[in-house]
Amino acid sequence: MSTNPSMLNVHLVPHTHDDVGWLKTVDQYYYGDRNNIQHAGVQYILDSVIDQLQKDPARRFIYVETAFFYRWWKQQNQSTQRIVTQLVNEGRLEFINGGWCMSDEATTHYSAVIDQMTLGLRFLNDTFGECGRPRVAWHIDPFGHAREHASIFAQMGYDGFFFGRLDYQDKARRMKTKEMEMLWRASESLTPPLADLFTGVLPNGYNPPEGFCWDQSCDDAPIRDDPDLEDYNVDEIVQKFLNASYRQAGFYKANHIIMTMGSDFQYENANLWYKNMDKLIKYVNALQAKGSKVNVLYSTPSCYLQELNLANLTWPLKTDDFFPYADDAHDFWTGYFTSRPALKLYERLSNSRLQTCNQLEVLGGPKSKSGPFGEGDSDTMKRAMGVAQHHDAVSGTEKQHVAYDYARRLATGWAHCEVLVRNSLAILSGSEAPRVFCENLNISVCPLTESSHKFSMNVYNPLGRTVSWPVRLPVNGSVYSVTDANGRAVDSQVGNVFISLKCTCYIYDMKSSCLLPLLINNKSVLLYVFKFLKVTFDETTGLLSSLTNLETNQTIQLTQNFYWYNASAGNNKESPQTSGAYIFRPNSSDPFVINKTAETQIVTVSSTVQEVTQWFSPWVSQVVRLYEGHRELELEWTVGPVPVADGLGKEVITRLDTDIKSSDYFYTDSNGREVLERRKDYRPTWELKQTEPVAGNYYPINSRAYIKDDKHQLTVVTDRSQGASSLYNGSLEIMLHRRLLYDDYRGVGEPLSEPGDFSDGLVARGRLLLTFTPPDTAADVHRPLAQGMVLQPLLSFQDGTPSANTKLEFSGLQTDLPPAVHLLTLSQWDEDTVLIRLEHQYQAKESKTHSQPVTVNLQKLFSTLDVLGASEMSLGANQWKEDMDRLQWNTSKPLPLSAKDPSPWEVTLNPMEIRTFLLRVRQL
Amino acid sequence: MSTNPSMLNVHLVPHTHDDVGWLKTVDQYYYGDRNNIQHAGVQYILDSVIDQLQKDPARRFIYVETAFFYRWWKQQNQSTQRIVTQLVNEGRLEFINGGWCMSDEATTHYSAVIDQMTLGLRFLNDTFGECGRPRVAWHIDPFGHAREHASIFAQMGYDGFFFGRLDYQDKARRMKTKEMEMLWRASESLTPPLADLFTGVLPNGYNPPEGFCWDQSCDDAPIRDDPDLEDYNVDEIVQKFLNASYRQAGFYKANHIIMTMGSDFQYENANLWYKNMDKLIKYVNALQAKGSKVNVLYSTPSCYLQELNLANLTWPLKTDDFFPYADDAHDFWTGYFTSRPALKLYERLSNSRLQTCNQLEVLGGPKSKSGPFGEGDSDTMKRAMGVAQHHDAVSGTEKQHVAYDYARRLATGWAHCEVLVRNSLAILSGSEAPRVFCENLNISVCPLTESSHKFSMNVYNPLGRTVSWPVRLPVNGSVYSVTDANGRAVDSQVGNVFISLKCTCYIYDMKSSCLLPLLINNKSVLLYVFKFLKVTFDETTGLLSSLTNLETNQTIQLTQNFYWYNASAGNNKESPQTSGAYIFRPNSSDPFVINKTAETQIVTVSSTVQEVTQWFSPWVSQVVRLYEGHRELELEWTVGPVPVADGLGKEVITRLDTDIKSSDYFYTDSNGREVLERRKDYRPTWELKQTEPVAGNYYPINSRAYIKDDKHQLTVVTDRSQGASSLYNGSLEIMLHRRLLYDDYRGVGEPLSEPGDFSDGLVARGRLLLTFTPPDTAADVHRPLAQGMVLQPLLSFQDGTPSANTKLEFSGLQTDLPPAVHLLTLSQWDEDTVLIRLEHQYQAKESKTHSQPVTVNLQKLFSTLDVLGASEMSLGANQWKEDMDRLQWNTSKPLPLSAKDPSPWEVTLNPMEIRTFLLRVRQL
Repeated sequence: MSTNPSMLNVHLVPHTHDDVGWLKTVDQYYYGDRNNIQHAGVQYILDSVIDQLQKDPARRFIYVETAFFYRWWKQQNQSTQRIVTQLVNEGRLEFINGGWCMSDEATTHYSAVIDQMTLGLRFLNDTFGECGRPRVAWHIDPFGHAREHASIFAQMGYDGFFFGRLDYQDKARRMKTKEMEMLWRASESLTPPLADLFTGVLPNGYNPPEGFCWDQSCDDAPIRDDPDLEDYNVDEIVQKFLNASYRQAGFYKANHIIMTMGSDFQYENANLWYKNMDKLIKYVNALQAKGSKVNVLYSTPSCYLQELNLANLTWPLKTDDFFPYADDAHDFWTGYFTSRPALKLYERLSNSRLQTCNQLEVLGGPKSKSGPFGEGDSDTMKRAMGVAQHHDAVSGTEKQHVAYDYARRLATGWAHCEVLVRNSLAILSGSEAPRVFCENLNISVCPLTESSHKFSMNVYNPLGRTVSWPVRLPVNGSVYSVTDANGRAVDSQVGNVFISLKCTCYIYDMKSSCLLPLLINNKSVLLYVFKFLKVTFDETTGLLSSLTNLETNQTIQLTQNFYWYNASAGNNKESPQTSGAYIFRPNSSDPFVINKTAETQIVTVSSTVQEVTQWFSPWVSQVVRLYEGHRELELEWTVGPVPVADGLGKEVITRLDTDIKSSDYFYTDSNGREVLERRKDYRPTWELKQTEPVAGNYYPINSRAYIKDDKHQLTVVTDRSQGASSLYNGSLEIMLHRRLLYDDYRGVGEPLSEPGDFSDGLVARGRLLLTFTPPDTAADVHRPLAQGMVLQPLLSFQDGTPSANTKLEFSGLQTDLPPAVHLLTLSQWDEDTVLIRLEHQYQAKESKTHSQPVTVNLQKLFSTLDVLGASEMSLGANQWKEDMDRLQWNTSKPLPLSAKDPSPWEVTLNPMEIRTFLLRVRQL
Repeated sequence: MSTNPSMLNVHLVPHTHDDVGWLKTVDQYYYGDRNNIQHAGVQYILDSVIDQLQKDPARRFIYVETAFFYRWWKQQNQSTQRIVTQLVNEGRLEFINGGWCMSDEATTHYSAVIDQMTLGLRFLNDTFGECGRPRVAWHIDPFGHAREHASIFAQMGYDGFFFGRLDYQDKARRMKTKEMEMLWRASESLTPPLADLFTGVLPNGYNPPEGFCWDQSCDDAPIRDDPDLEDYNVDEIVQKFLNASYRQAGFYKANHIIMTMGSDFQYENANLWYKNMDKLIKYVNALQAKGSKVNVLYSTPSCYLQELNLANLTWPLKTDDFFPYADDAHDFWTGYFTSRPALKLYERLSNSRLQTCNQLEVLGGPKSKSGPFGEGDSDTMKRAMGVAQHHDAVSGTEKQHVAYDYARRLATGWAHCEVLVRNSLAILSGSEAPRVFCENLNISVCPLTESSHKFSMNVYNPLGRTVSWPVRLPVNGSVYSVTDANGRAVDSQVGNVFISLKCTCYIYDMKSSCLLPLLINNKSVLLYVFKFLKVTFDETTGLLSSLTNLETNQTIQLTQNFYWYNASAGNNKESPQTSGAYIFRPNSSDPFVINKTAETQIVTVSSTVQEVTQWFSPWVSQVVRLYEGHRELELEWTVGPVPVADGLGKEVITRLDTDIKSSDYFYTDSNGREVLERRKDYRPTWELKQTEPVAGNYYPINSRAYIKDDKHQLTVVTDRSQGASSLYNGSLEIMLHRRLLYDDYRGVGEPLSEPGDFSDGLVARGRLLLTFTPPDTAADVHRPLAQGMVLQPLLSFQDGTPSANTKLEFSGLQTDLPPAVHLLTLSQWDEDTVLIRLEHQYQAKESKTHSQPVTVNLQKLFSTLDVLGASEMSLGANQWKEDMDRLQWNTSKPLPLSAKDPSPWEVTLNPMEIRTFLLRVRQL
């Protein structure tokens, strides 16, 4: 089949959209289990498609989710594998997107997104080589689109990107102006066209045009072309298709249009689709002999894209993002930014653990996978993290039983990693003494530290540089002597230890077992000061009242409190839309305050930490902490169980009200990297008709948000993805938790009401780190602070005193990385190779000090590895950098290439650049 | 795969049950159209099964409905046809049953059943030869089982018969006593084992055991055998299967059991089934190495049957039938005996037309298919009749739109036949003058006879002997001279003509155009007498009061009236079961009388006919007719539109109450042939617990029912299939019409409320023929009467006077057949061959005169055909009689073969015997 330049070419793209978990777990979807919940079985989809592709070389299919393809592939015999390989080589089966999953864009962190893409792409590359390399990114279902995702895809070498969902107002305008396809310039820092990505909005979401769905799950009329039987309908259906084609062509620039022939879990019986599409193609193209100018063909997104590229048209430029997503006036998909806050935290924590696991696999060498503590691996965790990035996983839009499954997978992944980490630490420390990981430190539970008089704590810091990190341990004694790896006493009090190295050991020795009262109850001491920050509380209300940066001597008024929006039950006159797992829709724009005053308790005042507990209600409290030597104020909030006995669903926020003159502007990050400017009731690319004054102004934050004026910037660094907005001048609000009573009609079929351990509602706890600085030095603080939040130290404990020959300190790096450089990835690739990603963690222009090119010597990075060779790869690590040859598009003028590296070993990073290398190494 | 004699062998039989119409039309089912009604597409089932069978030679499949297979086959290319032929030859695809459809057993006439079986079997035989010959009859879904069906199957050469539905009490008993499998002796007349049929009750209807349904339409857990994925369930599912196998083995005699792995329209995606069954077989049989004694294999009903035969066991004998069918205490499937009375009549009428069409195709020779009136054929009608026999067609249990489709198909079939008949009659008569068929004579509409002053009427009698048949024509004149083919005046009055030949022409010449008043209204003349019968009416009530046989001088009191049972709305305490298309469930055992008295009108009193009209209500009336020279009393009832504005569904019966001492006994025919004795609240083979005193005593009648005592027998011959019972001594009731307000939860999903032409309810009209005789001569009257009702003369009309050289009379037979012999089939087979079936139409012992062997000379049958050779075939005409070699079973002792024919041309028929011949002929 071929296109015809003088005709309207209709590219039929047979595809299936296979969620790696949603209403069912990923494995239930794979096997087709629990079809009473949803009929879907991916094993059968792949069986069936492979069968049907063999029947006619003209047929095409694309497959997207490698998590599923991987499961299927390893169950096939050699003969089937050979057939599939042949189909891939001939382009009849094409992989598109190719990540482990189709990630969510609002609630994922770029680190985990790059990992999950790498996992999927590597499987395809190892299995099929170059023919298996996806050329098109394909996010047909995610509920809004992040600029950082587009940037990542561009850096991974994708030629284009297609998606299905965007704001209905935006879509209507783009259809009218034929701007459904565009060039997305996805970074303000990277030199074009590095982060330029051709982006297309699909015409019907990801569904076929109306009346042409031939899946077993659809009821559309099949083509009945036997004149001997009743209801012959060929003429009618051909005419209907021609009409649909011409209508669609009216919204696009080229004489090529794309039709997505498939949908959720379709093609389980591919014959239905292909048999009818074969007939459609035959009868539609037969009309060409009678003068028809429509040419329909089996195609793929990459074939379609190639035709668009050949068309040599000029495309509009897009520089902002596609958030928030609304599919109708009162239907803003901004609730899922916060849905399932505990799962969102656990996913983030798991990313930190996986990076640690990966690093220790490299540093510990082969024995870390099979060592004194048994068989361990990082693969299980990689795959668990891979599915957790799915747009119904960390997004919080899955059913409760599926959310449990994601969490369980992460726990299992960590259990495998734990063995690896034990082995690796045994190798690195020279001690095979038993080691425990206290998983429940967040609720102050650790049997070892609570019972032992003498124990050692090992801290592994996965960051590429020294950090100071407060550690709080539950102990039974009141006075401990704590010494560091060098035997030096550490200035600590029970519950706080500071660490500052890559891998180091602290020894705790209990000196007194009588418990001292820890609580100092003195309401009048409401002024906190350390070296960098001064914090005041209002004596009447118990709320924060001001923040002073002692370095710059700037002060802002700052009030912080907790509120809840009453979730719509769908019973109002504007719309029946409810608040649910996806949708945020408050009944009123005014949230209810949980308590105008907080009962406060000064918990600790010491030389290292000062903390105040605020009680707002039985289900909302907060600890405000200031650490010596730290520039941030920590707000540790606890929300839940959210009461719903009053019949009202609640969406709980905290709001910071300041005298910063932020006007309508605020700033949110994109997947934890670059920051975008937001403006209330405004969209950069179209005349917004605002219909939801609160929900329509919410944006996802993954690591931070801020407000600022000329002199002041208040930045909040978060520990997980959340929704945030600024609805008033000087105000910033963050949604922390949601408990809802109704489903929101987007398919999940249950209200978001997490039961928690005691079935009375989930308690969520988290941290917001506040920094207050002048705008021009803000990044210097929040960039490293946020990275430290993402990659947290791993603590492990051993009872008693370490044996004499135990190595108490160890660093994998020869030296700390430069401040601008973040070690994004360090992971064993093959036996002798290691994948490393170095990242410039500052945007262009945001930091006078750091927004500069920085050079790193790859050969001198590691203390335990001899680097024998380095080859640069695409960001997805499935292509040599030098082989990358993306399609060129007519928007940007050719730009000068970035400066060359100083030498083969010395690599230079520009702001926001990530560089990926495969290093050939030898353990020293 | 093979069986293992030392193990319990579990035969998995992959199958699909494809209704040729039910909720959708047969073509909608074929294509998979209107899947919003029911997901079902047979084209895809066959596509998919053929694909899957090729993947593993161990896999088996059976296919049943040739109406579908035929549609599919003719759309396949040669390569696919070759593959399928190979699969059939290797026994991997096996045809079972093989008729055009799976016929209903309660409401079909044996003539049409034999035809539809012949149609299907011939297609298989022509296409696949001996390997395509079905060996097992398979009626897994019909709602009760007729003895005549079993007899037909035996005579067609089937080795066995399996079904799914029988009375729940019967089933429970059979499971307990291991009598689920038996030998059915299906005729009281035919010499065993001629009508003996091994019969098996399937364990789970026709479904798989619970938990093992792997179709896309099921939700059972797939086998999850990848230990790397969640929810590995192999051990659990294997154990569950072993339990199910042992449990089932407890109900059967042999160490072979059968499991039907499929259900309605399953295997559209056969991979789901086979993939999981492959695993099941693998894992269950793997346990044999650990001592398991269960052997599971892919199999077919004929393989299973062969193993049972080899087992050499003794089987219980069954001699009655399986009516009525109840699946619970208040759920008697006895409503469909009457459901859709107009469709039931139209189907019966169409059978008569098809036989006429077939005969005229033979008699007219090749030009009848392509002659002066164009192209005609009998195939369309054969196929339309084929699907009309389906157990959701003539049964009346389909949706309304599907009922319309069946009727439309019959009409289209007749339109094709009409051309053939025109051609044939033109050839036979030598006149190509236009000819019309007045289709609406039943409502006295025939434009030609109503407008023409002179016209001729051609009467074709498809019976093998002379009959007298009243003809009523609508005319505008009042006095006509009518002359027969020989120019003799016919004793007629307007509206009545008697005919008595095979093919003859009457000429009508209007002598007076002024209309005489036809109605004579004189209430006092209420005594009717003709030569054979005297009828009296009660002067007070207007109802029939007595019947006298003037030959034997016997009189009975006879009251006849109309009643309605109030259909259950399901709101009573015993059960929520409603009356519906399938189920008959009156709210009370006492029906409501429509009127205690009838308003009567004497319509006609003449030398040829006497008739009285009785008006019972605006929606119930009746014409009582007595014809000179006839032994039967005709009751022409008209019922409808049945009013339901009172919110009550109604099931209308007529009841004949006599002083015959019938006690609890009555008699009903089986598919229009042999008669079975019925007894109120009694079943011959088990201790009945009667739970529905009315519905539980209803039986299907296809052609007749009677009650009798030592001296008197009142026989009712019907014009269509109906439900009937005798609930009181001397009483016989027949259900005529039903209009219901609720669905009865058996799948059809709509209440049986036929709208009729004016959407106010369907009007049904029909005839009951009453004969009153001593029991020992009853058959002599009712046998020919019933055959005459089945094969009615075909009338056609030509305007004006026939031209001079028109042949006005013609007979295809050299002479009338002997009284005991019925010409069941006369149909063109191939160019030079003709299929003929001769039937002995009397049961053994029922007639002193006729229940004797009778001999017919095949060579001397036809007046226009030279019979060159004759080969006897099985009843289904898909095997030479001499090649028939059915399995022998251990119940009946070997019996002497029936006497040889006197000569090759002279064939002897014993009571109830049907003999089938392929005649090689030459047109004279």
